[in-house]
Amino acid sequence: MYMAKVIGSVVSTQKDPSLVGKKLMIVQPINAQGESIRYEEVATDSVGAGIGEYVLIVKGSGARSADGRSGLEGNVNDCSIVGIIDRFDG
Amino acid sequence: MYMAKVIGSVVSTQKDPSLVGKKLMIVQPINAQGESIRYEEVATDSVGAGIGEYVLIVKGSGARSADGRSGLEGNVNDCSIVGIIDRFDG
Amino acid sequence: MYMAKVIGSVVSTQKDPSLVGKKLMIVQPINAQGESIRYEEVATDSVGAGIGEYVLIVKGSGARSADGRSGLEGNVNDCSIVGIIDRFDG
Amino acid sequence: MYMAKVIGSVVSTQKDPSLVGKKLMIVQPINAQGESIRYEEVATDSVGAGIGEYVLIVKGSGARSADGRSGLEGNVNDCSIVGIIDRFDG
Amino acid sequence: MYMAKVIGSVVSTQKDPSLVGKKLMIVQPINAQGESIRYEEVATDSVGAGIGEYVLIVKGSGARSADGRSGLEGNVNDCSIVGIIDRFDG
Repeated sequence: MYMAKVIGSVVSTQKDPSLVGKKLMIVQPINAQGESIRYEEVATDSVGAGIGEYVLIVKGSGARSADGRSGLEGNVNDCSIVGIIDRFDG
Repeated sequence: MYMAKVIGSVVSTQKDPSLVGKKLMIVQPINAQGESIRYEEVATDSVGAGIGEYVLIVKGSGARSADGRSGLEGNVNDCSIVGIIDRFDG
Repeated sequence: MYMAKVIGSVVSTQKDPSLVGKKLMIVQPINAQGESIRYEEVATDSVGAGIGEYVLIVKGSGARSADGRSGLEGNVNDCSIVGIIDRFDG
Repeated sequence: MYMAKVIGSVVSTQKDPSLVGKKLMIVQPINAQGESIRYEEVATDSVGAGIGEYVLIVKGSGARSADGRSGLEGNVNDCSIVGIIDRFDG
Repeated sequence: MYMAKVIGSVVSTQKDPSLVGKKLMIVQPINAQGESIRYEEVATDSVGAGIGEYVLIVKGSGARSADGRSGLEGNVNDCSIVGIIDRFDG
């Protein structure tokens, strides 16, 4: 998992059936000081994260488990928001 | 998932049977400002993306689910275009 | 696997059900000289690692096996602390 | 998938049983202009690629499907040549 | 797969049960000229590699197949030495 800030969303009409009805958020990975690292990713959101919030991101096959009902079969998702970060403890 | 721009295609006659009949597009990853990041990848296309369009890319095992009928068994694909981006919302 | 130092933790109330009750540690990847490399990750801990300790990290589907009882199904985790490093031998 | 140029091979007598009888080619990832990017990888070859040819590479679990008969079980392979590139179209 | 040089080992008493009895080697990734690239990883060894030897490394789920008897279930391993490199052919 890594930490990221939600900075926007993507609108896509023509997409894989497994992504229909999912929110596609643009997330900027950050370090523990809240500074931007690497590049933006696009993550599905199943925890109700809003723009400006700090979140936890999972990549790969774990991301498909975050989608609940839709299961693993036929699900193309490889990046999900799985938690909203309340605070960092040093 | 990440954002990319379709910039070309690859012609390959001699290839794995699971790739026969698939369009192999060269995609340039981009950030939310549309600027090029990292390096080109080659992705299969199942949503009908054209050159110059902005798309969503999945990597790894999720990419195989994008190929529909061909299923997961015997499918070598690890990178798929899964959506066409209409617009970014900040 | 790679080596990392535990540098903090993340508090997240609203998160995927599979992460409830798990400790979410911030880990800083290090090289064999103990110097910081790359960027922080967030890893679940099943070996009782404390802040300041050097640990072994696994990524991807192997990380879900580290969670024991919770199994692979419905588990979003993609990063786990799987060992505490006693020492490096050159 | 990404594009690469075959630049050599690796000879290994003592290796995992699942790699016995496979050609282990050193491939240099390239961009669409044919310039070297990142670092060399070692890929199995099931399409008969020769040194100097441009090829398509898959990583991860998809690479095991490229090995045909050997299947997914007990196969350690995580990188395969899956196509020979005839040409790039812009 | 990528090429690496074995440069040391890690001693860990408190670790995931699936790693007990396994040798944990520190490996430095190298290019085809034998120069260090990227950063060290920690890999299990099932081919009897010694310090100073050049080896082949697999990452991800393929690494679990290298562990033989221990199988894929409950195995956290994501990085294995799968071959000793005798020589590179250009």
